[in-house]
Amino acid sequence: MAITLASIAHADRDLVLTRIIDAPRAKVFRAWTEPALLMQWFAPKPWTTPRAELDVRPGGSNLVVMRGPDGKEFQNRGVYLEVVANERLVSTDAYTAAWEPSEKPFMTVILTFEDVGGMTRYTARVRHWTVADREAHEKMGFHDGWGRCTDQLAALVAKL
Amino acid sequence: MAITLASIAHADRDLVLTRIIDAPRAKVFRAWTEPALLMQWFAPKPWTTPRAELDVRPGGSNLVVMRGPDGKEFQNRGVYLEVVANERLVSTDAYTAAWEPSEKPFMTVILTFEDVGGMTRYTARVRHWTVADREAHEKMGFHDGWGRCTDQLAALVAKL
Repeated sequence: MAITLASIAHADRDLVLTRIIDAPRAKVFRAWTEPALLMQWFAPKPWTTPRAELDVRPGGSNLVVMRGPDGKEFQNRGVYLEVVANERLVSTDAYTAAWEPSEKPFMTVILTFEDVGGMTRYTARVRHWTVADREAHEKMGFHDGWGRCTDQLAALVAKL
Repeated sequence: MAITLASIAHADRDLVLTRIIDAPRAKVFRAWTEPALLMQWFAPKPWTTPRAELDVRPGGSNLVVMRGPDGKEFQNRGVYLEVVANERLVSTDAYTAAWEPSEKPFMTVILTFEDVGGMTRYTARVRHWTVADREAHEKMGFHDGWGRCTDQLAALVAKL
């Protein structure tokens, strides 16, 4: 019942992607936390990820640079809030470093990695501060974009 | 030089109170982290603090209720981001629990407790997401309010 109520409360501010990935969760966690791996799947092709700096600990910051087909680059900065190896990874763009407020607190990304008979139930819950921001993110193509990146993530970890 | 530049960068969004308190820093830290103590000093008299729930760990939440002379109560909710016993305590009202976005990310409170020959250099740095919020907080009486509460805090720890 508590879960149901919580789900209702967040329904209007969360965007969620869930996928069963045919690899152990330790590998999926590595794909999110090792720069050399993240750079291979993070941006939907033909976009690339030329740079990733990941200080994976609570209060550690991350910088991920995505490059479009036209060469234009976009920097994504955030801070890790919670790190449980192979299980859970939480970060936010409300800070660019510990504890430097960002220009706009937009989202908190809550990743969970659950073991399902040696495979991984991977859930990315992207929680926004406002309903308007959730709607904007959805219109920007969240489901298609994160879906394609997750395809790339699954293909990569299958080879690890 | 790095410190100077950082100070300039934050000058427009931070409100800062620094005080030498004649007590060891462990006692000042206790006054911030033990509910029975915090309830004795947190609100400027004649306001009171009838309730304090402090789950002092990164990701733990806090709830502090302040009551005005007219009996009206105000709830303050936040989450701890960083806890270093007797040295450093960081919290924010951007979340009401881990990781529930609050209605409005307003401030991050960075407390440091430095040993100065057995006394404590206590610094409360209140960092806002916007310059407008810093200005509003200042106009609400930050310096007078936090100053009076710090007097109460200092008087309390002197008796511990």
